[in-house]
Amino acid sequence: METSTTALLVLGLIGSFAFALSGALAAVRAELDLFGVAVVAAATGLAGGILRDVLLGLRPTALRDWRFVAVVVAAAAVVILVHPVLERSRRAMELAEAAGLGFVCVAGTVDAFDHHSGPVEAVMLGALTGIGGGVVRDLLLGEAPVVLRRGFYAVPALIGALIYSCAQEVGAGGLVAAIVAVGVCVGLRLLGISKDINLPRAGPRWPDQSEP
Amino acid sequence: METSTTALLVLGLIGSFAFALSGALAAVRAELDLFGVAVVAAATGLAGGILRDVLLGLRPTALRDWRFVAVVVAAAAVVILVHPVLERSRRAMELAEAAGLGFVCVAGTVDAFDHHSGPVEAVMLGALTGIGGGVVRDLLLGEAPVVLRRGFYAVPALIGALIYSCAQEVGAGGLVAAIVAVGVCVGLRLLGISKDINLPRAGPRWPDQSEP
Amino acid sequence: METSTTALLVLGLIGSFAFALSGALAAVRAELDLFGVAVVAAATGLAGGILRDVLLGLRPTALRDWRFVAVVVAAAAVVILVHPVLERSRRAMELAEAAGLGFVCVAGTVDAFDHHSGPVEAVMLGALTGIGGGVVRDLLLGEAPVVLRRGFYAVPALIGALIYSCAQEVGAGGLVAAIVAVGVCVGLRLLGISKDINLPRAGPRWPDQSEP
Repeated sequence: METSTTALLVLGLIGSFAFALSGALAAVRAELDLFGVAVVAAATGLAGGILRDVLLGLRPTALRDWRFVAVVVAAAAVVILVHPVLERSRRAMELAEAAGLGFVCVAGTVDAFDHHSGPVEAVMLGALTGIGGGVVRDLLLGEAPVVLRRGFYAVPALIGALIYSCAQEVGAGGLVAAIVAVGVCVGLRLLGISKDINLPRAGPRWPDQSEP
Repeated sequence: METSTTALLVLGLIGSFAFALSGALAAVRAELDLFGVAVVAAATGLAGGILRDVLLGLRPTALRDWRFVAVVVAAAAVVILVHPVLERSRRAMELAEAAGLGFVCVAGTVDAFDHHSGPVEAVMLGALTGIGGGVVRDLLLGEAPVVLRRGFYAVPALIGALIYSCAQEVGAGGLVAAIVAVGVCVGLRLLGISKDINLPRAGPRWPDQSEP
Repeated sequence: METSTTALLVLGLIGSFAFALSGALAAVRAELDLFGVAVVAAATGLAGGILRDVLLGLRPTALRDWRFVAVVVAAAAVVILVHPVLERSRRAMELAEAAGLGFVCVAGTVDAFDHHSGPVEAVMLGALTGIGGGVVRDLLLGEAPVVLRRGFYAVPALIGALIYSCAQEVGAGGLVAAIVAVGVCVGLRLLGISKDINLPRAGPRWPDQSEP
């Protein structure tokens, strides 16, 4: 319990920071003002953890612990200060998003087990909270959530959550299992981006039935 | 209590399956990949029940009980396998959406009474969770929630929730009342579609004041 | 406690009414039908309070207390009846939105303290629930949330929440502090609109990297 509490805090803080970076970069690209950047960074960074705690029946740690507020504000500040020298913003955002996905998704899985979830709930909760940050970011920026469209996003989240759940079920949960699960999830996501992996679609192009 | 627990599970599972079908069909139409179809199906199918449990202060059954996960995965699989032979996809989606609306909305009403709600909360909760599935589906696909625009959607949900609430208040709650309420809600929704019922708008076309 | 309970109810009811007006006006502008107007009014008016209660681990008062349902229905009815004679709808909507922001944001802060929050959580919760109403309204109408784009929205919410939190920390919480915090928040928001205050953006126009 002690181990997983520490693991959870570290995972959560890194995940919040990474997602907040991705949110801030997207907000700068969308030409929001400084405060809009900070708000989108905070919402993207904290959404996963807040959702997780609400679904576990807890009051969200991300609102209570000043360290979470501090990391998302720091992420917004970093992006506002350094973004002009970032040459390849899309790459930076993809890295931040992949890291956020991995850390938040494994944090959700760890936290679910800490609160007496079975493995089904732990996997669902981990994947859901991992995906949540990117969905919130896209909705706040008025875009269709890209995480459901582009190749390979939910699969790495599910695999990361599954790896930790399996480890936990065989009694090997803890910080090491969490690091492995995060690494596999982030690695798969980045591989999916660099190889442009796309899952097949459900069939031939849907017959044209335009909305009336 | 025993009756309504069984009724609730059955209503919830059917509602989740129907909404998941509607989500999967919409995702296939939007040309998402296979996994995107599964994710939208799961989100659409489970959103109503998760929202209901969160608003009742409970940990969501839809994440804990493998049967809910199984029905949404099954719905996604059915759509992926058979959609090419569905000749009239819009009709299929409308049917699935109407069924989801009816079952989820009455399930929300039943569950609220099981958790000591008064009739106002039960009706609000039933209608809200019934509408929730379609709203989540549309937001995830990057569309304006059609349920608030097209003719006749929230009214059947409110009427279904009202029917069950009245039955409950006169001591006639249970599976029979639930079936009647679902039937009326689904029937009204389908009638609204086939007759193209539209409620009146709030007045003459709003004077042109384009955003600056 | 007694004072803040009364203050909370009054703040919440006024905030819900004002946000519901803003939602109904936006829905009429978007040419929704009568019921769509009522649903958007209810969602916009109640979203902040529901979010607040969920984040505090409570069952939402806005669904349980018929007075909240009554005020949002009344707001929808007012808009439907009188909107043709409103000459300057945008101004009316701005006023309603500013009032909603102030009352809901301070209500969130008060309620957080009533439930043993520290000052960080109280400020976060106040600002989040204040912003929530406008975000829900815009998402339901299929628009990018304007509150993050246009000049000066989150800053007044944060300042209003900060003022009440400081008053509470020095033992001066209560109805008077709440009125001052609401007044400053609404005043800043309206000043921001009338002076067209915009915060600076994060730098020069982002180099053109169109999505592929």
